Amino acid sequence: MGGKGTKEYEESLRALQIELVKLQADLIRTEARVLVIVEGRDAAGKDGTIKRLTEHMSPRDTRVFAPSKPSDAETKQWYFQRFTPHLPSGGEFVIFNRSWYNRAGVERVMGFATEDEVESFFRTVDDFERLQVRDGLHLRKYYLDIDRDEQKERLEERQNDPLKKWKNSPIDASASKKWDVYTKARDDMFRRTSFKEAPWRVVKADQKKPARLAMLADLIGSFDYKDKDESVLKRNRMLVFPWSKKIHARLAK
Amino acid sequence: MGGKGTKEYEESLRALQIELVKLQADLIRTEARVLVIVEGRDAAGKDGTIKRLTEHMSPRDTRVFAPSKPSDAETKQWYFQRFTPHLPSGGEFVIFNRSWYNRAGVERVMGFATEDEVESFFRTVDDFERLQVRDGLHLRKYYLDIDRDEQKERLEERQNDPLKKWKNSPIDASASKKWDVYTKARDDMFRRTSFKEAPWRVVKADQKKPARLAMLADLIGSFDYKDKDESVLKRNRMLVFPWSKKIHARLAK
Amino acid sequence: MGGKGTKEYEESLRALQIELVKLQADLIRTEARVLVIVEGRDAAGKDGTIKRLTEHMSPRDTRVFAPSKPSDAETKQWYFQRFTPHLPSGGEFVIFNRSWYNRAGVERVMGFATEDEVESFFRTVDDFERLQVRDGLHLRKYYLDIDRDEQKERLEERQNDPLKKWKNSPIDASASKKWDVYTKARDDMFRRTSFKEAPWRVVKADQKKPARLAMLADLIGSFDYKDKDESVLKRNRMLVFPWSKKIHARLAK
Amino acid sequence: MGGKGTKEYEESLRALQIELVKLQADLIRTEARVLVIVEGRDAAGKDGTIKRLTEHMSPRDTRVFAPSKPSDAETKQWYFQRFTPHLPSGGEFVIFNRSWYNRAGVERVMGFATEDEVESFFRTVDDFERLQVRDGLHLRKYYLDIDRDEQKERLEERQNDPLKKWKNSPIDASASKKWDVYTKARDDMFRRTSFKEAPWRVVKADQKKPARLAMLADLIGSFDYKDKDESVLKRNRMLVFPWSKKIHARLAK
Repeated sequence: MGGKGTKEYEESLRALQIELVKLQADLIRTEARVLVIVEGRDAAGKDGTIKRLTEHMSPRDTRVFAPSKPSDAETKQWYFQRFTPHLPSGGEFVIFNRSWYNRAGVERVMGFATEDEVESFFRTVDDFERLQVRDGLHLRKYYLDIDRDEQKERLEERQNDPLKKWKNSPIDASASKKWDVYTKARDDMFRRTSFKEAPWRVVKADQKKPARLAMLADLIGSFDYKDKDESVLKRNRMLVFPWSKKIHARLAK
Repeated sequence: MGGKGTKEYEESLRALQIELVKLQADLIRTEARVLVIVEGRDAAGKDGTIKRLTEHMSPRDTRVFAPSKPSDAETKQWYFQRFTPHLPSGGEFVIFNRSWYNRAGVERVMGFATEDEVESFFRTVDDFERLQVRDGLHLRKYYLDIDRDEQKERLEERQNDPLKKWKNSPIDASASKKWDVYTKARDDMFRRTSFKEAPWRVVKADQKKPARLAMLADLIGSFDYKDKDESVLKRNRMLVFPWSKKIHARLAK
Repeated sequence: MGGKGTKEYEESLRALQIELVKLQADLIRTEARVLVIVEGRDAAGKDGTIKRLTEHMSPRDTRVFAPSKPSDAETKQWYFQRFTPHLPSGGEFVIFNRSWYNRAGVERVMGFATEDEVESFFRTVDDFERLQVRDGLHLRKYYLDIDRDEQKERLEERQNDPLKKWKNSPIDASASKKWDVYTKARDDMFRRTSFKEAPWRVVKADQKKPARLAMLADLIGSFDYKDKDESVLKRNRMLVFPWSKKIHARLAK
Repeated sequence: MGGKGTKEYEESLRALQIELVKLQADLIRTEARVLVIVEGRDAAGKDGTIKRLTEHMSPRDTRVFAPSKPSDAETKQWYFQRFTPHLPSGGEFVIFNRSWYNRAGVERVMGFATEDEVESFFRTVDDFERLQVRDGLHLRKYYLDIDRDEQKERLEERQNDPLKKWKNSPIDASASKKWDVYTKARDDMFRRTSFKEAPWRVVKADQKKPARLAMLADLIGSFDYKDKDESVLKRNRMLVFPWSKKIHARLAK
């Protein structure tokens, strides 16, 4: 479980969640709008991370949105249209469990989108995000990265865990087989959609618990708020770091 | 913690959650529609119960809806209109964390609805629910009941717990003070809205963990599904039982 | 053109539209909710009637809703769910150009709904409407009835009119061919869904202009409002009348 | 009435509407998305123009959206969020009767928006529109311009016309009084939001009928479509022309 005992983990998690509650109180008071995009490989731990993130937040002011397959009508709209109603209003903290980046990931790899549509996405996503950020949105983009072996192991575990049966999908099955295609898609995404106003941050997620703590500390630490306790928010630059061409070697291959 | 050790609780909970996964697979396959209404006193444990219920269900097929204060436009509509978009589609398992019964509870007690509106609600809610049930909806209505002292203690704890600060609200403050008015409202609600097709089930929730287990067992047990393991679904009729005039004495006063 | 000269028609129409403006001012002031359902054979004149009805009403307080084919997700919901968001809010005057009665008409005739679904619709629609009416909705249901020859002529005209090309549809093509099946569907609908709180009113629409005037007079006349000018609202019982078993002989066969 | 006899007007209008039907058939076939923004002074003739534009279009593929006052929740969102659901899907022809430009017009003049909000709007609207246009939206922006005297006359007429009573609003009352402030707001809007991909086009609307015909010809003429009849689409550059600094002198002062 990565060097952290369960008790230590629980205590650290609790301390971070207390900071989150303080942060959220401030965000509500100032009517700030927050959008956290959580992307990553299949089985990288998105669901579990989001569960800990939201566990003690105010349900009324927190929303998790997991985009489903677009309907027929939606495929004929502006690509960002079906996501727009889910953007945060003042005081809301919204988490996207996968996001419009589906187009650059699963839709591209599985052939659900044409190359033209993918290219069009790449050409407009930065403008769309910049528009939001300039309008005051606090946008954070995290990518959970795991190794090939770790993914394989988790997908196998999943098949045997009676509580995780619903997680199995035909797309999962392709995750391992298409590992290299996903790797290339991830790299293209980083290269084309990481920019100053909305950079990608990579979370090395092979060890679930340390990764969760590091990501929460990084996310919370990126905000200023009343009574912020920096001592709790120790960043771990080995586990969470901004994407850049230089660090590319640290990503799973 | 009510006679159940933590380990025993965890094991029982896990066994129930495995049944839930089986149940949900069946519901999805048959495109059944499920609506579970969870009502109860303030601090009766609704959030915690729902968290355990949904913990391992498929997020894509499970929704929790917590109605917020109606907007100005919504107050001028048919009362059930703003709830309707949240009803389950085929294969969906929806939980209402509070519901249209707000009108018979908090809205009535706090004076947010007129006596006419409350009366009109009572006169139509059974027809509305019957309409749904006859159309195939699986409707389950649970009310979490706690004693006055237990509520007082929990509300005080809440004020001191840094993770539960957001739960405090001016309405909470009134929960204790208006205990008797809420009791009367609850009793009226039971009397007027418990009918054959959609009866109320009472959960004695003073001890959180046994109450959660009992409610899950009762809920799951009320469905037929493939590979149902009845040995896991032992009902506890002291903790969960259908409301009726006769059992009224067992409710908190 | 049915005995009414164009000028007389225009004057009568204008007088009725002035009454409508007065009526609507009253409805807005009292926050009344109005739903007018307009059904009828293909080419019976629904669009034209609705155009005259809404021509001078306040766009902000008037809505016309024409249901389209249900989406995949919608077919798995409660049948009335997709109509509910379009119900009027306080002060709104809503017209349904076709309605949930599609199920008893085109969907039944064309086989888009199963016999079970049709039967289920018949068993619940009255309860659904009664629920609304008891909640204060002003519900008016009109059926525009034309003769077989008249329909045929209009559908042919439509094909040659460059302004009406979009009205042609494969379903139109079947209107004539399936005349008898539609007649039976209409008769079943009347028999099973005309009840005290929400009776059907039949409009003999073979002559467009007199029919429009008669329907407007009938609709407006069914409300009480300030400065109502009864002299303008002369009803024509030959053209608009409540459906009943006795008058059945007057319907197109 | 501007030199055009009623009969000539009716014939020209009909010819244009026939072109519209052809255009729309093409747009539906190619799943094109069209958004026509209609702005202008109070009483400039927006409603009447839109009525003629949509009169014979396919209701199923045509939508008119008139933004109302934002709700409390909406005021806390991204400004463009509440407009986004109304953008056209593939094959849809959408007309905005007033639009997001309310912020630069009535909201600014009446003080419903702060100067910061107005400035923020000006800084982002071009990016927002460009994003849409690059994504394939056919965006057309028309401004109906009338003289001070003409406006005054029309607003007075409106007060005496029993069919136009609902058009009277306290904001109307201010239209004349605030003429100069509106003029300045209009000029700022033109200067800051007319750009290559989405230029403003001015319609001199003092004479209603010629203005309508000229605008329809201009709008239709801006598209390519099958069987386009250019002879019908004679442009009148005195009545409709692109805004530019040079032509500023031709606007109402």
